[in-house]
Amino acid sequence: MEKNDTSPGERYTPVTETRFYTFGDAKNPFVLTSGKTLFPITIAYETYGDPKNKHRAILVLHALTGDAHAAGYTREETEKAREEGREPKPGWWHTMIGPGKPIDTDTFFVICSNVLGGCRGTTGPSSIDPASGRPYGSLFPAITLRDMVNAQARLMDFLGIEKIFCIIGGSMGGIQALEWAISRPDRVRSVIPIACTVRHSAQNIAFYEVGRHAITSDLGYDGGDYYESEGPHRGLAMARMMAHITYMSEKSLQERFARRLQIHEASPEDEDFPQFQVNSYLMHQGSSFVDRFDANSYIVITRALDYYDISADFEDDLSQAFSGVDAEFLVISFSSDWHYPSRDSKTIVNALRANDIDVTYSDISTDWGHDSFLIKEVIDGKLGPLVHSFLNNLDRELADANHA
Amino acid sequence: MEKNDTSPGERYTPVTETRFYTFGDAKNPFVLTSGKTLFPITIAYETYGDPKNKHRAILVLHALTGDAHAAGYTREETEKAREEGREPKPGWWHTMIGPGKPIDTDTFFVICSNVLGGCRGTTGPSSIDPASGRPYGSLFPAITLRDMVNAQARLMDFLGIEKIFCIIGGSMGGIQALEWAISRPDRVRSVIPIACTVRHSAQNIAFYEVGRHAITSDLGYDGGDYYESEGPHRGLAMARMMAHITYMSEKSLQERFARRLQIHEASPEDEDFPQFQVNSYLMHQGSSFVDRFDANSYIVITRALDYYDISADFEDDLSQAFSGVDAEFLVISFSSDWHYPSRDSKTIVNALRANDIDVTYSDISTDWGHDSFLIKEVIDGKLGPLVHSFLNNLDRELADANHA
Repeated sequence: MEKNDTSPGERYTPVTETRFYTFGDAKNPFVLTSGKTLFPITIAYETYGDPKNKHRAILVLHALTGDAHAAGYTREETEKAREEGREPKPGWWHTMIGPGKPIDTDTFFVICSNVLGGCRGTTGPSSIDPASGRPYGSLFPAITLRDMVNAQARLMDFLGIEKIFCIIGGSMGGIQALEWAISRPDRVRSVIPIACTVRHSAQNIAFYEVGRHAITSDLGYDGGDYYESEGPHRGLAMARMMAHITYMSEKSLQERFARRLQIHEASPEDEDFPQFQVNSYLMHQGSSFVDRFDANSYIVITRALDYYDISADFEDDLSQAFSGVDAEFLVISFSSDWHYPSRDSKTIVNALRANDIDVTYSDISTDWGHDSFLIKEVIDGKLGPLVHSFLNNLDRELADANHA
Repeated sequence: MEKNDTSPGERYTPVTETRFYTFGDAKNPFVLTSGKTLFPITIAYETYGDPKNKHRAILVLHALTGDAHAAGYTREETEKAREEGREPKPGWWHTMIGPGKPIDTDTFFVICSNVLGGCRGTTGPSSIDPASGRPYGSLFPAITLRDMVNAQARLMDFLGIEKIFCIIGGSMGGIQALEWAISRPDRVRSVIPIACTVRHSAQNIAFYEVGRHAITSDLGYDGGDYYESEGPHRGLAMARMMAHITYMSEKSLQERFARRLQIHEASPEDEDFPQFQVNSYLMHQGSSFVDRFDANSYIVITRALDYYDISADFEDDLSQAFSGVDAEFLVISFSSDWHYPSRDSKTIVNALRANDIDVTYSDISTDWGHDSFLIKEVIDGKLGPLVHSFLNNLDRELADANHA
């Protein structure tokens, strides 16, 4: 990470830079769960902290619509913000990651990469297929969460990190963290899965199916090969708006748009009656999403999520699935989360304990629903301190073990 | 109701017939809550049982996408079914209403009408505006739940029913039943609101807003004046699919499409991977809905629902809102309903009891979610008997009172 720039006005630090690692060719292709191959693969990633602390490496895994830019400020965003006369927007977990923050970059070396299938620098449907010179589009192969983890493992190899001190992620990031622990027990020292699940419920799948249908039935979808036109932006916005409701609790929805106030302001005579505040909030969510996310990536990644079943290879026995795991766990859920409810985390905890795995579990009481792990109030309040002390305790344990 | 036709093969009875009542003109227009006028109004309705039992009239109110055809078989449907070689489909509450059924048409005179703003025979956006000779479309005025009730009251006047023995409905039907009790306490003897609420939650509004947005952003919407083209069928199907998920519980979703089975059948290599069973179920829900429901009606009615707030005129005091009510109540909720959760019904019960109103409350344990009131297993199990005994006890009380 760059040193703080102390020029006047240069207040936005740390400055971060997305880097790229490319691997795979015809001789050594990347093989997917399906048996198909995909190469070359480019992974976009950022690191924070001193590489000297590689033995204390923390791999951060993002959720469905996240990216590699987890913390700090990119030069590009800082420039753009200056031009537009506003504050630059930092990485998605800036409150969690940084010097002196819960994931302390003075102590740990932190890595975050964009998932395979994504559209934020890593190879995905919108990436150019070197074979054709055009975006993969409809030709991008189906991938699984295991494929995402396999690609991350290649990045870890490249960075020279054999044993990862901690793997942490919320939502889809938490599910990937579980897959890491199961598939590569020798490489994982500890895991912090936050607000996650072991498989999608029928309701999860139903909502994402409708979302995908909204995209594929948009006249702009063009079978997935839409990169030379406007694309299925209406359908994508719709999918996002609907999914977003599932990530919020009733209380957070009410907080955002005081229903009552709006009703009393509107009345049946109004032309745009009734213009609910939730309307403008959701419309904004939809349109800003379309600007930054690719529809095909949304389809590819949500399919991987819907398909994933952690105990599928273990005859549906979750305890069996965790039997080879060799890491310490801090499992966290949020009381108002109805997308991946607390009981899903409890299931994980029970299956881990059935294998005598050291697991700490906390169901954090919040009103913010599934997205709580991104909320500053929650991070500053309960989530950050929990994570911080878990990491530091483990670090101390290992230091003691090494000196013993 | 017609007598059973005993010709061979004529097994589908009772035969019912939708009738129409038209009222309102320039001199005596129907005045909406907004102050605007709408005339003439046609109300489509059906009646079951003997008109001699008008003093035991039961008004059945349908939900969002229901219609006047609550029970029995229309000739049209019976003919069509014969041609297609299948069983004819009866009214939406055929299991509840009929001779010897929970709402016994041998004892009671039952009426069901299509709501104002609907598209199943009653005046709505798809109806012809006599002034222009074309469908109202975008010119149809905004209406409220109170307007729906006011129109129903006109029908009751026409049928010569002053005091209604019981007003019963599920979901939106239940909300209208509450509005009846509040706005016309002198005309209502008893009320059975099932799986309803006193106002939409922010989550309810958010989902319906996304649904309306799906419709209005469909290129076929054409500002609401689409009757000469294919209309916004994609958006309407999307709205329906999404709403339908909210009416189902996790368990009923799983029952309908065994998630696991589907996953193990599919694999990443499949072209249409993964083709979840929920996909075909929801797609069917969407497409069959588009065949029978008008997009503008969906917008008009869901807006009326979202706008409705039972205690808005009572400074948000629900007990105050019920203070003029003079009826006996049977309030029913379903344990797995997350669209209008049981706590909403509990709120109603508490506010009624605060006014010393005679109220029986039952939270029926079911796995079928919000739509439980339509499920045969639930009607045959708990719902039917509860309603049946409530109606019969009240009937007996009144008979005793009359003889005393």
